[in-house]
Parts: sequence; structure tokens; C-alpha cells
Amino acid sequence: MTDVLTVVKVGGAVLDDEARCARVLSSFASIGSRALLVHGGGVVASEMQRRLGVEPVMIGGRRVTDDETLRIVTMTYAGWINKTIAARLRATGCNALGIAASDGGIVRAERRPVTPVDYGHVGNVLAVDAAALLRLMAAGFTPVVAPITSDAQGALLNTNADTIAAEIAIALAQTSDVTLFYCFEHDGVLADVHDAHSRLRTLSRLEARALERAGVIGGGMLPKLENAFRAAELGVRRVVVCNADDLAAVADGVALHGTEITP
Amino acid sequence: MTDVLTVVKVGGAVLDDEARCARVLSSFASIGSRALLVHGGGVVASEMQRRLGVEPVMIGGRRVTDDETLRIVTMTYAGWINKTIAARLRATGCNALGIAASDGGIVRAERRPVTPVDYGHVGNVLAVDAAALLRLMAAGFTPVVAPITSDAQGALLNTNADTIAAEIAIALAQTSDVTLFYCFEHDGVLADVHDAHSRLRTLSRLEARALERAGVIGGGMLPKLENAFRAAELGVRRVVVCNADDLAAVADGVALHGTEITP
Repeated sequence: MTDVLTVVKVGGAVLDDEARCARVLSSFASIGSRALLVHGGGVVASEMQRRLGVEPVMIGGRRVTDDETLRIVTMTYAGWINKTIAARLRATGCNALGIAASDGGIVRAERRPVTPVDYGHVGNVLAVDAAALLRLMAAGFTPVVAPITSDAQGALLNTNADTIAAEIAIALAQTSDVTLFYCFEHDGVLADVHDAHSRLRTLSRLEARALERAGVIGGGMLPKLENAFRAAELGVRRVVVCNADDLAAVADGVALHGTEITP
Repeated sequence: MTDVLTVVKVGGAVLDDEARCARVLSSFASIGSRALLVHGGGVVASEMQRRLGVEPVMIGGRRVTDDETLRIVTMTYAGWINKTIAARLRATGCNALGIAASDGGIVRAERRPVTPVDYGHVGNVLAVDAAALLRLMAAGFTPVVAPITSDAQGALLNTNADTIAAEIAIALAQTSDVTLFYCFEHDGVLADVHDAHSRLRTLSRLEARALERAGVIGGGMLPKLENAFRAAELGVRRVVVCNADDLAAVADGVALHGTEITP
């Protein structure tokens, strides 16, 4: 029988809201199948940068990561946020194991080319070791993964959490039945960003292109959707972009929430 | 056949020295048996506290840990130091998996009683789940453990790394043949702190008491030795306090370095 696995990505804005964070972790812990959580934390990292006198620099939604910023994002994502989430999950009975994507060689990466933009210590994912993740899960652990990777020389790299979630889901889908949920602070992909009730029930790549041309979809939603489409096209059985508050209902298979991403 | 396991504790002053840190990690990676690393990081944490406007408060060598300090030590130990060590070890071919002691329920703790001194978010170790550690190692991973634990309610706790190393070694010693190395910046326990050549080759609890009364041993060495004696008394086959630079030689069984702790 094929393993049923669930990959959940939770964004930084959700984690920054105490009550919402507690709800999404409780929903995650209640998922029946084996599950894995990937988290962001950009809001908290920017706050820590400012406290340490470093003004965050973002280009196209990606954080330019100099030496000092690498240290701050590693501390914030892999330290404070990762350990807080894992300990809270453990208190709900979920045997969470907090790691970075770099740990155990789970995600191998390389530094992003410096042209056209030099983002500094930012990683592109090269490969995911699905077997290593499956060994961790078979040993009884629920991985909680911070978006820090490393290259073959042992240099740490700040890496997009949406991409890590998609690549992990794709790698696991080679041998398992995988569902991928992107949880954030909106109800799904909205046809009108100013109308919370304009959620699209499904979205294909072709439809997304049309919405992009019409100026409906833009900004940070585009790279998130690119990861979601890639996962849907490369073997992940179900990909949903949804409100973190709806995770439990969406994981139960109820299609009343979120946007189902179709190839 | 009984498993042969090595537990190595590396202190913060060693990690703070780039060249020395590289040497000790290279030595650790070369240990033939299955190994596990526990690290400190107090020097880096104090520096980060000061940068964030928090003056470190130490009582009896232990850091008083308020909310802000807990966040800083978790970021520093479990984030920056843990991920840096694990990625460097991976680059040398060691399949390091960086975790906190709280992860996977490996070390369960409770907040230290507030009398006679309220240290804040500081943990006392209650139990070590040796089976969980053995499952991680059997799955092919080399655990790198940061000294952050959590209580049953999911609250993180700053916890002494020497104690964590001792308790992990004792728990593993119930079913395995365990060696414990405390690596720091001195050559071992010195009979005269001003004479680097006054290293004691062996030290028992009785001898240590006599040296303490004579004023030879004191300060931070006393709690470190207490952990070492406890490990030696509770089933750990070999306990050595040594210079980080001598780890490879000591692990090879050469008794020319360090201080062997006897029950």
C-alpha cells in the first residue's frame, strides 16, 4: 500500500499571530496521516534585523542576505520559530522534531547565481533526499522544517520556504500519495484582492496566466503559485492554497475552503 | 553485541574560536563509532544579548533567563550555532542532524524551582528518551544537540549543556558501551590553574573533594565535574575531560591527554 503523506507550509504572517498560530498547529497535529510541516518566518526576521540595526532589503519578494542577515534568518527561522513550533506541537501529543532543511542532507542546495541579481547567501534547491525524510518519519518523528539549506561546502543558505515545501512534496510523491497545503492569512487565491469572498475554488496554470495578464494576480502570489503548479504537475495528488484557519477542514477533504490547484 | 557510542560535549569558548572549532569538528567526524555531539554557546549568546541591549546576568555560572534571554539563547544555540556546526560536519561527510534537546522528546525537563534562586526559564532534566536517540542514529543520522529543552506544556527552557551530555550518556549506557568526552579550552583538570602542565591524569570524586577543600578546584569546574562523576558512577564506561584539540587522540584511546574521570 502506498503511504499517505501530508506536507503543510505555514507562512510567517500566520506564525506572527499568537492565536492563529495556536489554531494552525492544533489543526496540523490532528491530521490523520503522516505529516511534515515547513514554516517561514519573514515577519519575525525583519523585526530582528531592525533591532540589530540592519534594514531589510527585499527584491522581487526575496530577502537580500548578507553575512549578518544570514545569521539573523538562521537564528530566527531555525532557532526561535522552529523550536517554538516543535515544542508546542509536542505539547499536543505530536512527536515533532525541529530541523533545518540543511540537516541530514534533506535538502541540498547551491547559492543562487549572482546575475541578474546578487541575493547573497540565498539558495536554489538542487535535490531532496526523500529517503532520509521517510527514515525520520518511519522512526516515529514528525519533521518541522526551517527554510535554511546548505551547499556541499557547508555554507548555510536562506531559501524560500514555499519552494522547499513544493520540492519536498514532489520528492515524496515519487513513492507516496502526497497532499500539499499552503496555509496563509487569506482564504485562497482571490479574484479580487479587496473582496475576501472572491475566492477561486480551483485554479489551473492557464487560468492563472489569464488572471496575471488581467492584473488580478501579482506580487508575492506569483512565485507561490509557481511552486504550487510545479507540485501539481510533478505528481503531488492534491495541492491547496488556503487560510491557516481552514487547515483542519481542508485536510479532512472538505472542498468548501481554499483554492485547489490543478495542473 | 553491545553498541559502542561516543558522546562529545564541546563548550562555547571552543566554538567561538574559528580554527579550533574546525579542528574539533574534524576530529568528531573522524570518530569511528556512532557519535553524538552536544554543544554550548554561552559566549556567543552573551554577545548577542549585549547587541540587543540585554546585560547578561549570571548566578553561580548559570544564566538568569527572562523571556528576552530565552529567545536569544534559543536563537543562538539552536539556530546559528547548531546549524553552522551541522552543516560543517556534513561537508566533512558526517551525516549530521541538528536538533535541540527538546526535539522528538529526547530530553524532557521541568522549570527549575524558583527557590533559592529564580533563574527564570531554566530547565532541570527529568528524563532522556534513549530509544528515540537510538532510532535517529539507526536511521543513519548523527545528532548534533543544542541545550534547549522543553517542559510538558511546550515551554522552552535554557538548560546546562554539560548536564544534557551527562544525562544522554547515562541513558544510552543502559544498553550501550558509552564514552563521554568533555572538550574545552584547557588540557584537562589542572592541579594549578596557572600551570598548563599541571594536568591531572585521573580524578576521582574523593580526590576532587580534597582539591576543592584545598582551593585548587573551583568556579565553573565544579558543576562540570559533578556531571562527569555522575556519568562515571552511573554506567558510562569512560569519561574524559580534555582539550578540544586532543579529541582525536583521546577518542583513539591514547591516554596521554586529558583527565580520566573515575567513580
